[in-house]
Amino acid sequence: MRKIDVKIPSRPKDSYTIAIGNNLLGSILTKVKKRMPKKNLFVLTDANVAKAGLLKKLLKSSKLPYYIISPAGERSKHIQTVTKIIESMEKKALGRDCAVIALGGGTVGDIAGFVAAIYKRGVPVIQIPTTTVSQADSAIGGKTGVDSSISKNAYGSFHHPSAVYIDVSTLKTLNKKQFNTGLVETIKHALIADEKYFIYLQKNMKDIIAKKPGPLEYIALKNCQVKASVVEIDPYEKNKRRILNYGHTIGHAVESASNYRILHGQAVAIGIIAANIIEQKLGFGDKKRLSELKKLFKQMNISLKIPKSITKRKILDIISRDKKAVNKWPRFVLLAETGKVLCKKGDYAHNVKRKIVEDAIDILLKQSF
Amino acid sequence: MRKIDVKIPSRPKDSYTIAIGNNLLGSILTKVKKRMPKKNLFVLTDANVAKAGLLKKLLKSSKLPYYIISPAGERSKHIQTVTKIIESMEKKALGRDCAVIALGGGTVGDIAGFVAAIYKRGVPVIQIPTTTVSQADSAIGGKTGVDSSISKNAYGSFHHPSAVYIDVSTLKTLNKKQFNTGLVETIKHALIADEKYFIYLQKNMKDIIAKKPGPLEYIALKNCQVKASVVEIDPYEKNKRRILNYGHTIGHAVESASNYRILHGQAVAIGIIAANIIEQKLGFGDKKRLSELKKLFKQMNISLKIPKSITKRKILDIISRDKKAVNKWPRFVLLAETGKVLCKKGDYAHNVKRKIVEDAIDILLKQSF
Repeated sequence: MRKIDVKIPSRPKDSYTIAIGNNLLGSILTKVKKRMPKKNLFVLTDANVAKAGLLKKLLKSSKLPYYIISPAGERSKHIQTVTKIIESMEKKALGRDCAVIALGGGTVGDIAGFVAAIYKRGVPVIQIPTTTVSQADSAIGGKTGVDSSISKNAYGSFHHPSAVYIDVSTLKTLNKKQFNTGLVETIKHALIADEKYFIYLQKNMKDIIAKKPGPLEYIALKNCQVKASVVEIDPYEKNKRRILNYGHTIGHAVESASNYRILHGQAVAIGIIAANIIEQKLGFGDKKRLSELKKLFKQMNISLKIPKSITKRKILDIISRDKKAVNKWPRFVLLAETGKVLCKKGDYAHNVKRKIVEDAIDILLKQSF
Repeated sequence: MRKIDVKIPSRPKDSYTIAIGNNLLGSILTKVKKRMPKKNLFVLTDANVAKAGLLKKLLKSSKLPYYIISPAGERSKHIQTVTKIIESMEKKALGRDCAVIALGGGTVGDIAGFVAAIYKRGVPVIQIPTTTVSQADSAIGGKTGVDSSISKNAYGSFHHPSAVYIDVSTLKTLNKKQFNTGLVETIKHALIADEKYFIYLQKNMKDIIAKKPGPLEYIALKNCQVKASVVEIDPYEKNKRRILNYGHTIGHAVESASNYRILHGQAVAIGIIAANIIEQKLGFGDKKRLSELKKLFKQMNISLKIPKSITKRKILDIISRDKKAVNKWPRFVLLAETGKVLCKKGDYAHNVKRKIVEDAIDILLKQSF
């Protein structure tokens, strides 16, 4: 037998800039064209964003090709949407020298990032997140993906954006429910990384909910700092990045079991409560934080009630297919204290006995919040 | 406006091993399980390979889950096949801790590589190429991809294999046409990298066609060396890797215009002749090499005749949508001499005037080989 070793050279360090401001949208295209003058730009957005006038504000008189994902929302985050978009790009004769601009929330960003990752073996993506959740979370860090008919993010890729532009004025287009549920990722960031930030959020939630530009720019900045600090250490989710999944294991399952009638943020809020219950069962939970969280979610008008159609069995079935599952059982991110994730022997995701998870789900389902 | 820079850390050097031998197949699974004991393995193959008994030889008594792509061949290299495979993997509850084994030719390897690249944001792939073309070319280097309903490799990703196992005895399962057309990539390797290897091929083509294990192992080794030397320098096809596309620009177009009735190798042979004609028109072509190539292709029983249904217009239309096109016009890899690719100012892909390409296509279409 003969053997040859093929070397894969190292990839050099790289970086991208997140620009945060108020009323930025109208000037972004000029900035992008200056950054990448040779790229044929292509804009991806969805029906809601277009209807809210943001596409027009971005494009102004420009004749860039675009695609409007319709209907807006999680239901379109499916491989079939990707197929339609890619065929539309091909019909527009876009080559490997194109770049995708994602204008919208997490769904648009995830789809656009994935399309860019796989179109002709990869083209750049520029993220312009327009929702609380995407500005805080999904636009940064390079995770992309779409769902299959069976599960969430079955298809995906790590594809870092070339640039991110956050215009907090776009948040005005969101209704109260969308805006508030999107803030759950912000609370998650405070919980896993910064106790002072958690205190800031409790003190300033009223102004944030009132969409005052100052606090909005501040939390955008804080969120990006938390997310960036984690992503920089572990861009491909080998270990520490998992802490961003706090509240997401049971959260995702509830979201999926509800057939996406429960919004992502609301599901994560439920998942955060579930994690707290598990923490308490393991002996290091914090009852004070649980009541603070419940108070905060109440102020944000986020219901933690789970519909009766979602059974324990359904949740267990879904978490066993979690993409981070090992031997068909997920590992959980847990808090050691507010602002600090539990880390054991360098590991941030932990095996929790089935019985404890089942009991926590029982409490979750029975409790009336 | 506030700005944050997000650092993407460098990726360390990496490598993978290509093992080459005769009658290896039965022992590969043991080797893979030793290499990655924690991975849940999943085998992807196609109907032809399974029918030829290779799947059985690989699996022996093992109960690994597998998926058989049907029908075998280019027609299945489509995003719809990927969707079916991924849903099958989900139904088998395979998590992110699985690894995909690709057993088959270029189509299987490309599909499996792409599936592995995007399944739950990426899992390892082990390539076991079983055809002349995949052993020489597609199994090495990490290019993966599938077609859309509009064009070839519209979907794709760079995803390096974790290991490659080449068993030349698997080539016995190929019929003469498959075997011979697959050798065109071997000739391409000699043309772009090694004049002596081109002379070896001319001298030993009879033994190669007779599938003698010695020469087969030798060309497998040489091919991997040529391919690896290029891929190591430029894994993500920024520049030098493009030389592997020699003969592929017009080759792909002819293949696509024939609706894949013309086999890939045959199409590349036509593309190599086209490149030679372009080289001659540009003043540095080699008539001697052209006649050597025609002689070699004749010995290999590869027809260079293009069906009448494939018009100049069709070819031009397809090459303008080439994924390496810049401003809707492809750039061509050309030979300066046998074994040496033309490089101008560090560039390996060249702009060729439309008129010259059109004239070359005219000659190609009119010529009776």
